Amino acid sequence: MKRYLLTPGPTPVPEIVRFAEARQIIHHRTPEFSAIFMEASEGLKYVFQTKQEVYIFSSVGSGAMEAAVVNTMSAGDTGLVVDTGKFGERWKKILEKYGVKTEVLKYGWGESVKTEDVEKKLKENGNIKAVFTQLTETSTGIVNDIKKLAQIVSGTGSILVVDAVSGLAGQEFYMDDWNVDVTVAGSQKGLMLAPGLGFIAFSQKAWNMVEASKLPKFYFDVKAYRKNLQNKTQPFTTPVSLIAGLNESIKLIKGEGLEKIFERCKKLAAATRAGVKALGLELFTEVPCDVVTSVKVPAGLDGAALVKRMRDELGVGIAGGQDDLKGKMFRIAHMGYMYEFDLIVAVAALEMMLHTMGYKVELGRGIRAMEETFLKK
Amino acid sequence: MKRYLLTPGPTPVPEIVRFAEARQIIHHRTPEFSAIFMEASEGLKYVFQTKQEVYIFSSVGSGAMEAAVVNTMSAGDTGLVVDTGKFGERWKKILEKYGVKTEVLKYGWGESVKTEDVEKKLKENGNIKAVFTQLTETSTGIVNDIKKLAQIVSGTGSILVVDAVSGLAGQEFYMDDWNVDVTVAGSQKGLMLAPGLGFIAFSQKAWNMVEASKLPKFYFDVKAYRKNLQNKTQPFTTPVSLIAGLNESIKLIKGEGLEKIFERCKKLAAATRAGVKALGLELFTEVPCDVVTSVKVPAGLDGAALVKRMRDELGVGIAGGQDDLKGKMFRIAHMGYMYEFDLIVAVAALEMMLHTMGYKVELGRGIRAMEETFLKK
Repeated sequence: MKRYLLTPGPTPVPEIVRFAEARQIIHHRTPEFSAIFMEASEGLKYVFQTKQEVYIFSSVGSGAMEAAVVNTMSAGDTGLVVDTGKFGERWKKILEKYGVKTEVLKYGWGESVKTEDVEKKLKENGNIKAVFTQLTETSTGIVNDIKKLAQIVSGTGSILVVDAVSGLAGQEFYMDDWNVDVTVAGSQKGLMLAPGLGFIAFSQKAWNMVEASKLPKFYFDVKAYRKNLQNKTQPFTTPVSLIAGLNESIKLIKGEGLEKIFERCKKLAAATRAGVKALGLELFTEVPCDVVTSVKVPAGLDGAALVKRMRDELGVGIAGGQDDLKGKMFRIAHMGYMYEFDLIVAVAALEMMLHTMGYKVELGRGIRAMEETFLKK
Repeated sequence: MKRYLLTPGPTPVPEIVRFAEARQIIHHRTPEFSAIFMEASEGLKYVFQTKQEVYIFSSVGSGAMEAAVVNTMSAGDTGLVVDTGKFGERWKKILEKYGVKTEVLKYGWGESVKTEDVEKKLKENGNIKAVFTQLTETSTGIVNDIKKLAQIVSGTGSILVVDAVSGLAGQEFYMDDWNVDVTVAGSQKGLMLAPGLGFIAFSQKAWNMVEASKLPKFYFDVKAYRKNLQNKTQPFTTPVSLIAGLNESIKLIKGEGLEKIFERCKKLAAATRAGVKALGLELFTEVPCDVVTSVKVPAGLDGAALVKRMRDELGVGIAGGQDDLKGKMFRIAHMGYMYEFDLIVAVAALEMMLHTMGYKVELGRGIRAMEETFLKK
């Protein structure tokens, strides 16, 4: 069956990137590979919009999240978790596993942070060393106002740690301009690579915390990475194949331009939302991000079956709801290597499957709304 | 320049494996990928020679080493490190970073463990919870007698933790038959994959320690992997591309047969040793393993230049000495996707470069010794 992947990670990988990933191995401690590695490291600064070094781990995004915690915190410190969904909960879990106290601002799934809550918390509790949040929360499709949050946090002694795993290179994000202190990301979303690379960058303020951090670490110890980067290498065997691919994906990103990619995702998001609304469906959130559209499953319809049947009968992979939202929502991604016609495919498959499952839709109506959106200047 | 890679990791990846790594992404939480994942997980049991589950991390081998420590130990426990080189030192470093006390049996580089030393240590110090060692020590080319060590350790309350990163699927190793408690490995050596997967398996005795272990962990928490494996998935995004490749490499390993691979590496080792000795060079160690041959650089010759010039002028990549041995030894690997003629290339390049650098060799003499070895039944 011909398959189409519109899940919010992993996402499709362009052919040229996959071919680079499939190159025969180049040893990681050679001038030939060092050149590839340094080009990728430099290119990541553009994607992160930072002048700081971006470090690469052989891990998925959750490894980079752990790295953010173990490199900045010490046992007994307090972290403020902005919990807007499954990945917000993950921050809490990591912090607790490492003996860091947590304060949690918990929002309903589908809501985004109220920045005044963070401001209040930071005023109430002077011990908060770091605020942990998501740029976009993959599980619910919301976007947090990181620019505003960073304005608040940068005026305090705390740092702002942003999980940009699903948002990077899709949702507007300017690490340095916005004063974000720690950014973590992964390879398998906007960066259009196979899963297996984690990324992290630190502001100077965050580096000061790194120097003082006492949590135990070895594999994710960024100081070892910083030291080795001076020799254009890494402390351990480097994931050379994925980094060869990364170089190609960064070329694609630079070729299109980050601003243009932000615009594309915004337009894809607008079209997708217009499409599902035209079918009479409701969006899951009022604060949608640009990289994934979350949609409520209408009453009486089996949402899990909808997602499964789209995948198994039509070959079109979208994501269902996670945890408590299983069967109650579905998610269509528009990030990375996804363009107008990929979303046309997704909504066409949705129309057909809704019809097949007995939900009354006017076939083609969603697509019409999308085309109208795309045709707008 | 046409290049040949004979380093002890990363090693060349067969074309069929690279093509599998380059397949378009399959989402990790689908029946299609679960089938690939479970086939790979089952296949790894054969490679490890264990009935236990083998867990896969998105990390390089050093991540799996960290996993062995943080999943079995608690702060204040004592670990006995068998230090036979750079990777022995790595065990010590990881243990210390996590607040585990270490006793160290330090051997000179080029020596392997004297198992009676371990026996004595375990008798003297009843607090030793685990013995950490290497199957083969990549930095020096030695092999440790793991079978004997396991006999000693299995009679005590301690566990034996074996770093088989460079040895697995090359050097004889039978996890269950030998009573090894924890085995860690990586993708980029005998498994013939790109770097980026770490592996770990635990005996029942080791699982009992896992249950009691109190070191902090999140990314490498095997209990989360164990729980998710029941649903044929992993706790985090799975490195789907490398696992698609892993399935192909396991097919190659099964096709050749593990015993036959052990024999091949043994024969390649014998031929390589015969070749370098015929050139008048001395082996670095008297207890050589089957996966890498380490050779002393003769007096008056610049060993670092030898390795560099073989790579840059002849396209043949071998490894130099690490740390204190820089310039004093070199290493030729015979593991993974390396066969007779790959080693012929390596030694031919060595002959030519020795000649070029003014070291007196009879051209072809090393190759002749190799051919004679290969022709022996």
